Amino acid sequence: MKLGRLNHVGVATPDLDASIAHYRDIMGATDITEPFVLDSQKVRVCFVNTPGENGTAGTQIELLEPTDPDSAVGKWIEKNPLGGQHHICYEVPDIHEAKAWFESKGKRVLGEPRIGAHGTLIFFVHPKDMGGQLTEIMETPKDGAH
Amino acid sequence: MKLGRLNHVGVATPDLDASIAHYRDIMGATDITEPFVLDSQKVRVCFVNTPGENGTAGTQIELLEPTDPDSAVGKWIEKNPLGGQHHICYEVPDIHEAKAWFESKGKRVLGEPRIGAHGTLIFFVHPKDMGGQLTEIMETPKDGAH
Repeated sequence: MKLGRLNHVGVATPDLDASIAHYRDIMGATDITEPFVLDSQKVRVCFVNTPGENGTAGTQIELLEPTDPDSAVGKWIEKNPLGGQHHICYEVPDIHEAKAWFESKGKRVLGEPRIGAHGTLIFFVHPKDMGGQLTEIMETPKDGAH
Repeated sequence: MKLGRLNHVGVATPDLDASIAHYRDIMGATDITEPFVLDSQKVRVCFVNTPGENGTAGTQIELLEPTDPDSAVGKWIEKNPLGGQHHICYEVPDIHEAKAWFESKGKRVLGEPRIGAHGTLIFFVHPKDMGGQLTEIMETPKDGAH
């Protein structure tokens, strides 16, 4: 496998609206997407777009607020009530090839590929197999890498 | 302040060489810088370069191994023995203006600006004031954004 684009850093928050205000008013973000609910992960989500080099799109911050305390992100917030860095997400050209690759290396893939926040297939790899980092792998959207 | 480029995600590790092997052999990184010791932070450091859009430089992964257990990263590893996401770093054009900005917003800046791993001035902002994220602010290198 060849390292893909670092699509986003997932940041969990107990209060999505307060986090949006923080990125806008303190960090100076000018491009934050409209929040929506991603039912499959029981989160309300939006993306903070950061600038890349030479006017390209940079790595996004994905803000995640649990919609249910009894969910993966809900339990994470229970342990980390302020929020913080939750996962990291790399793009791949083919999600099924990537799944086979990680499994062939003995990495635990958490479930089958499913539709993620960017509308393409994603899976997560167990943080204990990834140097403590919960790692999301997502197929690059066909219309570009955002 | 206007949101700057997401320069890197800092990832702490108990074993830098094992992490380099992980990024190279599992994640498929082809561009990893030579490790060096950053005495001021008591860490051994290297950068994994990830691809940005259209051949530009993407956000880096900064791998950090403590050189002393009695240091900020050493204590973090004691609590998180597998390693994991430690901080996030944004670029600014002027480090002193940025420090004044964060302080004017009531954010705790941790110490005076000092030379960071990219050779430019940096400071950290307290995670409790930043949604649980230890946040590094670095002045963009004059020769480009790497």
